[in-house]
Amino acid sequence: MSTLRGNCLMGQSGGPTAVINSSICGVIQEAVKHAEIERIYGARHGILGVLNEDLIDLRREDPEEVELLKCTPAAALGSIRHKLPEPEQDSSEYKRIFQVFDAHDIRYFLYAGGNDSMDTINKISAYAAKVGYDLRAIGIPKTVDNDLAGIDHCPGYGSVAKHIAAITLGVGLDMRSVHLTDPVVIMEVMGRNAGWMTASSALARREEGDAPNLIYVPEAPWNRARFLDDVKRSHAEYGWCFIAVSVGTKDESGEYLAAQKGEFATDAFGHVQLGGAGPFLENLVREELGLKTRYVRLGPAERVAMHFASLTDRDEAYRLGAFAVQSVIEGVTARMVSLERKSNDPYECELTLADLEVVANEEKLIPREWLNEAGNDVTQSFLDYARPLIQGEVPTPIQDGLPRYARLRGVPVGKKLGAWRRSS
Amino acid sequence: MSTLRGNCLMGQSGGPTAVINSSICGVIQEAVKHAEIERIYGARHGILGVLNEDLIDLRREDPEEVELLKCTPAAALGSIRHKLPEPEQDSSEYKRIFQVFDAHDIRYFLYAGGNDSMDTINKISAYAAKVGYDLRAIGIPKTVDNDLAGIDHCPGYGSVAKHIAAITLGVGLDMRSVHLTDPVVIMEVMGRNAGWMTASSALARREEGDAPNLIYVPEAPWNRARFLDDVKRSHAEYGWCFIAVSVGTKDESGEYLAAQKGEFATDAFGHVQLGGAGPFLENLVREELGLKTRYVRLGPAERVAMHFASLTDRDEAYRLGAFAVQSVIEGVTARMVSLERKSNDPYECELTLADLEVVANEEKLIPREWLNEAGNDVTQSFLDYARPLIQGEVPTPIQDGLPRYARLRGVPVGKKLGAWRRSS
Repeated sequence: MSTLRGNCLMGQSGGPTAVINSSICGVIQEAVKHAEIERIYGARHGILGVLNEDLIDLRREDPEEVELLKCTPAAALGSIRHKLPEPEQDSSEYKRIFQVFDAHDIRYFLYAGGNDSMDTINKISAYAAKVGYDLRAIGIPKTVDNDLAGIDHCPGYGSVAKHIAAITLGVGLDMRSVHLTDPVVIMEVMGRNAGWMTASSALARREEGDAPNLIYVPEAPWNRARFLDDVKRSHAEYGWCFIAVSVGTKDESGEYLAAQKGEFATDAFGHVQLGGAGPFLENLVREELGLKTRYVRLGPAERVAMHFASLTDRDEAYRLGAFAVQSVIEGVTARMVSLERKSNDPYECELTLADLEVVANEEKLIPREWLNEAGNDVTQSFLDYARPLIQGEVPTPIQDGLPRYARLRGVPVGKKLGAWRRSS
Repeated sequence: MSTLRGNCLMGQSGGPTAVINSSICGVIQEAVKHAEIERIYGARHGILGVLNEDLIDLRREDPEEVELLKCTPAAALGSIRHKLPEPEQDSSEYKRIFQVFDAHDIRYFLYAGGNDSMDTINKISAYAAKVGYDLRAIGIPKTVDNDLAGIDHCPGYGSVAKHIAAITLGVGLDMRSVHLTDPVVIMEVMGRNAGWMTASSALARREEGDAPNLIYVPEAPWNRARFLDDVKRSHAEYGWCFIAVSVGTKDESGEYLAAQKGEFATDAFGHVQLGGAGPFLENLVREELGLKTRYVRLGPAERVAMHFASLTDRDEAYRLGAFAVQSVIEGVTARMVSLERKSNDPYECELTLADLEVVANEEKLIPREWLNEAGNDVTQSFLDYARPLIQGEVPTPIQDGLPRYARLRGVPVGKKLGAWRRSS
């Protein structure tokens, strides 16, 4: 394999996680070790930063701040949602990207993200081959959703799972305390098609009756009568019911709970019904069972809890960043760095490389057999899979009572091209 | 002062906090040191447990589990919302309470809670004096709302403030990362009349532009036009806007935002409008400014985050529990143990005793001068007050990746009376 000298550019894309910055840190701290790489640049807001030639010089960051990226949530380089067009239909963005690459002698392109980001890497790799530009491009997986194919589990998931389980544990105790007046809690969790995050609430259970008592995910169709029976039974048996529900849970006709209105468009008091899967169930429980219900929706707060993130997850995110650099140096291109599980107990994962086509075009859902027959809980197989991913806590430096997160200086790289204007 | 020998009964009431169990732990660990106290009982679900003679023997708990109460959120004895009637109008509950006290030789009654709980202690003390029952009753303050009068700040508040500030810090970074597509975050925080919890989000700010950019609390009337200007200005200046809003924020006519419908009862897509102050503002921002908005509502999750609770808060809660025992042993009755601040820097609070009448009947709001003139932010005085309360982290034992919280055995005390039936 030939040696390729030049500069390295990295970017972040899609929704942030607690540990995507650890991957960036892994990239930077590994890249400085390799003489083939001269400069290490970051694209501000992912591929948009490439298009806009909006790059920062990561070698000019304070090494202590770079180290702090290991315990800083969100996307320090800025993120974006942007899908590249098919190059046959519109090649203008590709032309611009390669003008920028060429102007800055970018030979290594590392992109951290989910399916769409892997699609970006895939398209850019193919275009590079087509135009004969010597580029090694690699994807670094991240997503709280854990819906990436070609990988055992996705960096970012372990930390969100740990956070959701911790909140479930705490709110579950809170519910026990006040269940004589407030017996039902509905926790709505992100996830449009995959229920991995919602399912992780099950890790909080230690004893019979512990929260969550019911789990509804998009992988198992929801049924109204069965749901009301489920809640009634839990309330009768324990005196309470904690329900974890995915935003994207659907009924048997495939309609999102969040989209349902009908008789609950206004409640008995004439109040307008809340939207979302959680508020829909909240109204149903109140109207049909007469039980007082509290509603929790962490939303983006699910994925930023570095103050209780998983060390296992953090370390894997870091190692994947470093492994991405090692891989491109060794000549790998057009792949995603990945994890292959060797064993649950003791937990062991190996670093591997995955096919971008698979990652870009498939969506990994919870296997149906990891959900119980009634479709309101997970099975032991899920717990065995997920439990190792939440182990360990990330030591976070504290300043004045709050986490001290990294702040990058963001020294701009001098522009060599004119401003980009979308050709259309 | 005469020595009073007998048993000690304690209960918890109202909404739980991260540290109310620390007060219980302080009571138990102090009570065992005093020969005057024979047995230490807990009432299950507060005053309802007294009425039902539903008591547990706290001396029969494993001391290690009692120690773990110091880092266990929620109310381990169970809580309740129950307001005693005026004894002149209905004395049946008082008669029953004192039958139970007499049957179990309860001479020390300690009750942890908020305004209503202090009202309970007040009424029970007065009734004891009236019927000549030798009882020493004392209140232990707790509330996340921080709205108790007669005390500098309330145990429970420091931890919820720390949690809300940490979530604001994290979600703020998340918002910076994705602001090109999702520029606005609305975080709805509990608090009907007092904005202390919402205001604590301001502790997250380190630099100009940091979240939260706008803070709306019930103490300052909200104005629609000003609000839209505020959001527009923040978005223009920084590219984003993080809004922290209390559930109980009201407009200038005194109406809750949560109750407003009007033109936003359905949005442009015909979707039914969400209820609550957060969803109301979300719709307003989307409809009037066309900005994509994400919504966070921690709800009960605000108060259970022992995985990032304040050590200062935890230690004060513990000390107040122990001080309550010391006080009743020394002859104090019909008071609430309290905190008086001596200094902000270095932070110093002294243990004192407060008048129950004041605590039971007043509500402490944020002083208007601790909010800025525009009513959309706090001033330095608030930050100086709140910052010391979030210092330090509670070391939490971890089992299998999650906090290991206390589980009490709850050994029942043998009943000596028949079942209680409400006389009405």
